[in-house]
Amino acid sequence: MSTLIDRLNDNEQPEYIKKIAQHENIDVDQFIQLVCEGKIVIPMNNAIPKPDPIAIGEKTRIKINANMGTSPNRCDADYEIEKVKVAIKYGADTIMDLSIAGNVSELRQKIIELYPIPIGTVPIYEAMIGLTSPDQLSIGQFLNVIEKQAKEGVDFMTIHAGLLKQQIPDIDKRLLGVVSRGGSLIVKWMRYHQKQNFTYEYFDDILAIAKEYDITMSLGDGLRPGCTADSNDAAQLGELNVLGELVQRCREQNVQVMVEGPGHVPLHLIQENITLQKTICHQAPFYVLGPLVLDYATGYDHIAGAIGGALAAYHGADFLCYVTPAEHLRLPTIDDVRDGVIASKIAAVAVDLSRNNPRELERNRSMSLARKQFDWESQKSMAIDTEKFTQYFEKGNTSDVPPCTMCGDWCAMKHKQG
Amino acid sequence: MSTLIDRLNDNEQPEYIKKIAQHENIDVDQFIQLVCEGKIVIPMNNAIPKPDPIAIGEKTRIKINANMGTSPNRCDADYEIEKVKVAIKYGADTIMDLSIAGNVSELRQKIIELYPIPIGTVPIYEAMIGLTSPDQLSIGQFLNVIEKQAKEGVDFMTIHAGLLKQQIPDIDKRLLGVVSRGGSLIVKWMRYHQKQNFTYEYFDDILAIAKEYDITMSLGDGLRPGCTADSNDAAQLGELNVLGELVQRCREQNVQVMVEGPGHVPLHLIQENITLQKTICHQAPFYVLGPLVLDYATGYDHIAGAIGGALAAYHGADFLCYVTPAEHLRLPTIDDVRDGVIASKIAAVAVDLSRNNPRELERNRSMSLARKQFDWESQKSMAIDTEKFTQYFEKGNTSDVPPCTMCGDWCAMKHKQG
Repeated sequence: MSTLIDRLNDNEQPEYIKKIAQHENIDVDQFIQLVCEGKIVIPMNNAIPKPDPIAIGEKTRIKINANMGTSPNRCDADYEIEKVKVAIKYGADTIMDLSIAGNVSELRQKIIELYPIPIGTVPIYEAMIGLTSPDQLSIGQFLNVIEKQAKEGVDFMTIHAGLLKQQIPDIDKRLLGVVSRGGSLIVKWMRYHQKQNFTYEYFDDILAIAKEYDITMSLGDGLRPGCTADSNDAAQLGELNVLGELVQRCREQNVQVMVEGPGHVPLHLIQENITLQKTICHQAPFYVLGPLVLDYATGYDHIAGAIGGALAAYHGADFLCYVTPAEHLRLPTIDDVRDGVIASKIAAVAVDLSRNNPRELERNRSMSLARKQFDWESQKSMAIDTEKFTQYFEKGNTSDVPPCTMCGDWCAMKHKQG
Repeated sequence: MSTLIDRLNDNEQPEYIKKIAQHENIDVDQFIQLVCEGKIVIPMNNAIPKPDPIAIGEKTRIKINANMGTSPNRCDADYEIEKVKVAIKYGADTIMDLSIAGNVSELRQKIIELYPIPIGTVPIYEAMIGLTSPDQLSIGQFLNVIEKQAKEGVDFMTIHAGLLKQQIPDIDKRLLGVVSRGGSLIVKWMRYHQKQNFTYEYFDDILAIAKEYDITMSLGDGLRPGCTADSNDAAQLGELNVLGELVQRCREQNVQVMVEGPGHVPLHLIQENITLQKTICHQAPFYVLGPLVLDYATGYDHIAGAIGGALAAYHGADFLCYVTPAEHLRLPTIDDVRDGVIASKIAAVAVDLSRNNPRELERNRSMSLARKQFDWESQKSMAIDTEKFTQYFEKGNTSDVPPCTMCGDWCAMKHKQG
């Protein structure tokens, strides 16, 4: 089957293109051009098309991803499905399934059936299931996993092909080495076999599957900094240069591609990081994890991530992977997922608003007007989390009308009305 | 008695000056110059000196303030004192007491005795106690309140003297009018009496008291935008011009002065807002409330405020007033105070880190190293909230050693070690 880019190049225009362009307030022709240039991706597997594909990249609204997945320490498929439900409820645009325990295929297919939003995976995780050490990974088995996941309907996949063995000396200079799970598996494999990263060596084979199923490649940043001290260092930039080369190889095959990014980055290096990535990776959409602007906000990393995410997106990142309060501490619970999604969503929509997105302008304006009119029902309906609104509002306000007790009789807004 | 600036001008150097300069990593002479130029303030009442005064302004660490205070709807002095304790525990540098019910003098004096950090007030609140309408406010009674508070040991006071009657037409053009409590009282007074703002008319009398007790003036932004749509508008900028004039009048009297700011500001207008304030107000320290980068993050305004606060401080704001999750909904609880302080603190220290503050570099580095070494006790001790760390860590990690279950056997950091 052909990829979206193949079809657009043949002047064939899938029906959803116009719909997305309108939704994103972009002229259709310009939108198609941005997709063809690779500045926008529309992750959608052609084996299992979905009703509402989304666009990620230049001129589009900032999108957010939520991770879920089973692990040996907590392998409860229903719990993970509930996470997906909650993530979508609070505004996640995509889901990444990072399951590594139980029947991962069954769980993934169930999610795809129940929640047809774009789904991503990190195939090396599934490739590790049943192995006792990353040394045992092989390209054949890895390609089998990719193809199996492609058939199941996965829309985008993280491949850590930019991390090469010549970067190992730079890794060893770091304070925190490799903190990407996928990246660390590849490094361990390279150290053991004294060979080049097999996902780089066989990238054409990976691309062949991606092309067949129109999987969007998400080039993993195996060397993303795990602490602010390692940010924008030689290891990270070395990998980034390879990612730039891989972006072009994807595009030559008409395979859509985005690039993943940090990680932990102090405020003053965020703009530089985004500019470098966009330049070196030929304006491919940039998908960042956080970034966290502080290393010790443990328990509140969703806030450190919202600050970093807002600044990153403001400077050009297109896609924010959520960070939950559980980061660095435990597997996220349902509540953690909600808190993580909401924090990322605030960062994302704050950037949309700063770009005068008409829907954001309208929602913020309506909220403000409802506030002026003491219209609490409307405020609740427009709040980012109606349940927390209700909980706070009702708990704090037991007495008189109008019910908000913040300022009592001295409410500025009441004076204004008077 | 003389003010700090009087003394510095006479080449008299209070003992604490050197201590603060060292704490802030600023050369003492440069520090004194910045204080004399008004680019740094050290809020401390000379009637009741405190053991550890702090500096706010250029080249200093970003400071954060937490508000507390009784209200007719919840008038429990012990509860408010507990808020102060919690705020300080999580990193508040100053407290503003906004009490409007009960024995406010007794509560304030108790706080000053128990917690000798800089304390601020908004005197018009206390001036309103016992009145049935702001029309009844008078300059005589207002000056009495200021003097009484000065004698009690208040270190900085918000005065809404920049809001003039000629700005009323610009207010009426706004979506949300006046949302500052103090500002709205002044506007109502001006509308009723058809006279100029009495705090502007009698600003010299206010300054005389400030000079006597060395109160730091905090020039209130009565016209701070209450929604992103009103940001950086004619009303706000009109007031800002008057604040610039008042800064100079304070300085002529050797009275320290800082300027308060928004409010609700979309991301793309934050830098402009800070630059305007710093320019128009002659580089006086800038004290911002939030700013909130979104109007509908209700229940999560501490996150919207942390994003705005980080960006504002990054671009030059010096002092962040916390915003709690209760903002726009109810009076904050103790938990809300904790969440608000921590969110502001993350914003503040992220900016300190971006400026290579040595203590921040060290704490982030140590935290990262502890992470590498799976040293959970050290991580806990350095975390921004050790209790949440413990709660999360113990809840999520019931099984094996090492205890973190995030990645199980595939932990990147374990691979790196192997």
